[in-house]
Amino acid sequence: MSVTQVAAYAAPAPKAPLERTTVPRRPVGEHDVLIDIKYSGICHSDIHQARDGWGEGIFPMVPGHEIAGVVAEVGPGVTRFAVGDRVGVGCIVDSCRECEQCLADQEQYCAKGITGTYNALDKNGQPTYGGYSTHIVVDENYTVRIPDGLALDVAAPLLCAGITLYSPLRHWQAGPGKKVAVVGLGGLGHMGVKIAHALGAEVTVLSQSLRKKEDGLRLGASHYYATSDETTFEKLAGSFDLIVSTVSAPLPLDAYLRLLKVDGAFVNVGAPEEPVALNLFSVIGGRKTLAGSMIGGIAETQEMLDFCAEHGLGSEIEVIAAEQVNEAYERVLASDVRYRFVIDAATI
Amino acid sequence: MSVTQVAAYAAPAPKAPLERTTVPRRPVGEHDVLIDIKYSGICHSDIHQARDGWGEGIFPMVPGHEIAGVVAEVGPGVTRFAVGDRVGVGCIVDSCRECEQCLADQEQYCAKGITGTYNALDKNGQPTYGGYSTHIVVDENYTVRIPDGLALDVAAPLLCAGITLYSPLRHWQAGPGKKVAVVGLGGLGHMGVKIAHALGAEVTVLSQSLRKKEDGLRLGASHYYATSDETTFEKLAGSFDLIVSTVSAPLPLDAYLRLLKVDGAFVNVGAPEEPVALNLFSVIGGRKTLAGSMIGGIAETQEMLDFCAEHGLGSEIEVIAAEQVNEAYERVLASDVRYRFVIDAATI
Repeated sequence: MSVTQVAAYAAPAPKAPLERTTVPRRPVGEHDVLIDIKYSGICHSDIHQARDGWGEGIFPMVPGHEIAGVVAEVGPGVTRFAVGDRVGVGCIVDSCRECEQCLADQEQYCAKGITGTYNALDKNGQPTYGGYSTHIVVDENYTVRIPDGLALDVAAPLLCAGITLYSPLRHWQAGPGKKVAVVGLGGLGHMGVKIAHALGAEVTVLSQSLRKKEDGLRLGASHYYATSDETTFEKLAGSFDLIVSTVSAPLPLDAYLRLLKVDGAFVNVGAPEEPVALNLFSVIGGRKTLAGSMIGGIAETQEMLDFCAEHGLGSEIEVIAAEQVNEAYERVLASDVRYRFVIDAATI
Repeated sequence: MSVTQVAAYAAPAPKAPLERTTVPRRPVGEHDVLIDIKYSGICHSDIHQARDGWGEGIFPMVPGHEIAGVVAEVGPGVTRFAVGDRVGVGCIVDSCRECEQCLADQEQYCAKGITGTYNALDKNGQPTYGGYSTHIVVDENYTVRIPDGLALDVAAPLLCAGITLYSPLRHWQAGPGKKVAVVGLGGLGHMGVKIAHALGAEVTVLSQSLRKKEDGLRLGASHYYATSDETTFEKLAGSFDLIVSTVSAPLPLDAYLRLLKVDGAFVNVGAPEEPVALNLFSVIGGRKTLAGSMIGGIAETQEMLDFCAEHGLGSEIEVIAAEQVNEAYERVLASDVRYRFVIDAATI
């Protein structure tokens, strides 16, 4: 297969609505798989980037790094996948493969920087285009297997939202005997609740209001508190071993750090673009940790998918047709989705 | 022994110069030791508190929580010490003894709060008075042994400065193969350099200028950089497993976090009173930790003293007479001491 034009939804310019177009996919190389995309999740960061919130966006931009599909063709050197395999692609389609982090299966922290699934330039200097598309060509080493027990539509969001929560929950050892809070019950947070519960932790949701309380408890939380209620911060002082914040709003960090036990960790997987204020005495008393975590490595993503299949965990989704993508973006920004939009690629 | 008045240097009111006076010491109780104080270190936090920088000070105030002396009398229930033993007292003279932290030998993080060696109220509601004095009465459980190999004058500052650095260096596993930076080469920092080097780590000093470079290298650092030189932050990007900051000036945290390797930790043992700004993306990329640490527990303080004796580590000190204390305070504030003032209690 030579370079092929495939159908996609792209933002032609910063802040412009997404529209149907075609983008090139490279020939299937020695170690590549061609994936027939079935579903593609809509991540909050897609909207940031399509609207150029982080600057330096490459346009036209095809967002999408929560990709689930089926292998349609394999390169001659491919050993791990065969035509017909159910596969996924997340945020990373390449990395240097040589640095300490890549060799330790932590490609997400590659010393030379990852090649993003979209809005990046690959090693040949060509722009990458993401999952809002009918097909994608990806190196087999950056492709993961979706276990049979997981439907492709609910699996798609696991490729970013799932691994973004799974990785810190594992790293900071959420499990039996541990009290874990998840801040924000959205696309990321709802997977945090499910995964932390499945890992055996006692889960609390900290959300602005009690609007989604019923959902939170159903998804695996034992407790649900509104952060708009100031008594929440008194009641829960010193309660948690681990808090994972999924929100991009600037939080009053000192107040949240007071909710940790001694040696507890507050881990950010979401973050505001502007700096936040912090009194360092909030971490000194109680030897507390303020940390961050970014997606996960390829092997860990496979581990997460296997874990989710074993525990019957998928994302809570609303499947949409591709032409609804701009409307879906507005609804994501209004927190009006429970809990992830997934584009049915058959409609592209 | 009934309540006794002993000689001391005290601040009679916030910001007033310290002057010679007498303060009461409680009768030697069942589990108490009466200590004949020989040396008492001057900690930066003494000045903060004597000048009421943190508010709510109890006056008159006798500062001093770096105490080295000899046991002069023991209560009938004392089992761990005998008259003539060389002992030390640090920042903690009591805690609840019942909470999870006290039971885990982490009294410094006692759930009910520690009883400070000075500027605190004991369980009977009586003010505690610190080490700028000739004698002190302390529960044997909050008293540590100073090994024979350590001179009392150079041992005194270990009781706060030493343990403040030893505890995080051990907790974050400074040792062979690890690159550790110490920010600030003062009373705390110079002990950080000595201890991190003795633990086997490769030590770098990050100081405002190169003024103390020769000292830093002599004390055990392999490298010494000026943070006033902007190229330092470029040169050292991604270098350190652990950075311990001993400074109370507000640092540009994002710049310092860039000096860490993936999974590295920036640990504050000093801190400014005002909030600092932080971009949370600085911890998300590279899964970095911003943390704090506060002194250490009693058992750990003993472990630190044994470690220092074994490795021949004492503080670099300038011994002064008690009447020089106000002048010494000014010199500490001007960073004009290498590296700790120690009051000779015989001069009180």
